[in-house]
Amino acid sequence: MLSSLIFIISFSFIPAVLVFAADFSYSGITGPAFWGKFNETCLQGENQSPIDIPYDEFLKFTKPDYISFDDSHNVEIENKGHSIEISKNLSGKLKIKDDDYELLQFHFHTPSEHRVDGKYHDVEAHFVFTDKEGKYSVVGVFYDISDQPSEFFNPIIANIPHGEDKKTIEFIGLSSVLKDIDWLNKAYNYFGSLTTPPCTEGVIWWVAHSVQPIGKDQFFKLRDTTGFNSRYTQVRKGEK
Amino acid sequence: MLSSLIFIISFSFIPAVLVFAADFSYSGITGPAFWGKFNETCLQGENQSPIDIPYDEFLKFTKPDYISFDDSHNVEIENKGHSIEISKNLSGKLKIKDDDYELLQFHFHTPSEHRVDGKYHDVEAHFVFTDKEGKYSVVGVFYDISDQPSEFFNPIIANIPHGEDKKTIEFIGLSSVLKDIDWLNKAYNYFGSLTTPPCTEGVIWWVAHSVQPIGKDQFFKLRDTTGFNSRYTQVRKGEK
Repeated sequence: MLSSLIFIISFSFIPAVLVFAADFSYSGITGPAFWGKFNETCLQGENQSPIDIPYDEFLKFTKPDYISFDDSHNVEIENKGHSIEISKNLSGKLKIKDDDYELLQFHFHTPSEHRVDGKYHDVEAHFVFTDKEGKYSVVGVFYDISDQPSEFFNPIIANIPHGEDKKTIEFIGLSSVLKDIDWLNKAYNYFGSLTTPPCTEGVIWWVAHSVQPIGKDQFFKLRDTTGFNSRYTQVRKGEK
Repeated sequence: MLSSLIFIISFSFIPAVLVFAADFSYSGITGPAFWGKFNETCLQGENQSPIDIPYDEFLKFTKPDYISFDDSHNVEIENKGHSIEISKNLSGKLKIKDDDYELLQFHFHTPSEHRVDGKYHDVEAHFVFTDKEGKYSVVGVFYDISDQPSEFFNPIIANIPHGEDKKTIEFIGLSSVLKDIDWLNKAYNYFGSLTTPPCTEGVIWWVAHSVQPIGKDQFFKLRDTTGFNSRYTQVRKGEK
């Protein structure tokens, strides 16, 4: 009887513990202020992202040595609870000096994670690249609500999975994104981190200067799915 | 020569120190994670606001014993840098048991400070009431972008001061706000705090259930003035 009771109590605690250990969130005791328990880099790192970029620094442009985004077919879209992520069959390339990166996935934050002189935007897309050694480079693109829907977002919004199932998007016009941001000719470049646990540092960031439009209804459908999924801006090393 | 140099060095440090001591902000080392240095309640308080309200709790309605908002004339609008605040000649009343409160000021946060099940809104207005003893009660109202401009916001947006000057708004249709939120018949009530330093606790909160519209251009003008001015949601006492 006693052992049965102990079994029940032990068992009933397992799911709660698993959720606690595995899932970060954007509020409460698994929110950004507590991400140190998922990986201490989130708390102790000295080059954490996102940041509030001073406007005068934002105007100093740098660009990668090469970048290309190709239109892609039969990509996968997944609802990860705290984000909508598009991956597989993507064709994007980035070159920094002699280092070649490939586009791994992209996803969206509402509201934007980076700010410029304290100002934010409605959405920030993160195009995540990796090289052969597993190093990251991320292209960030801001979107603000517009009267016109965005063609790029159309197939994404139409295929957001409501549950844990994954869906396939037949065609996604990735090349238009790079064209819209002027082939990343105007970007703010800095060394930061992933903006979610494990908050890995050494990430080469490119935050595009140009702000792109997203339709109001497209925005609401995206935001209603993930809610607030933006880490607060981090203090930069040496900032006083 | 040496004394002159010391004078110059001392003098040049004064403005930075003054700004540091006096002004909280929403990023960097004066951002929300560091508000404990303005008042330790911000860091150590156990009933801090805003919070992420669980949806099932949000549906439990409570209302004050009496509330009224009257249309107001010749009110003052001030750009406080991190917020747009309307005060003076306001006529609003709130009664909680035998305690009478008067409307002191209202201001706006972009994006919303409170969330419901992790979801946020574009704007949150805070109507701040005080009683004779200086206790606070605040009514929070959410706004989302709409195709139609809001009549209530028209005189506010048209009179946002660009600098530190204050302006006068001849007429503001405050009564429409209370009507729009159904006389606060559906509100989430809890004990929290001010959401900016000194983060004073004992604040009686009423977060209106109904989400109101704000025109897209009105929203952008408001947001462009203050930028991101939303404290991240706080862990509630006893939350595990």
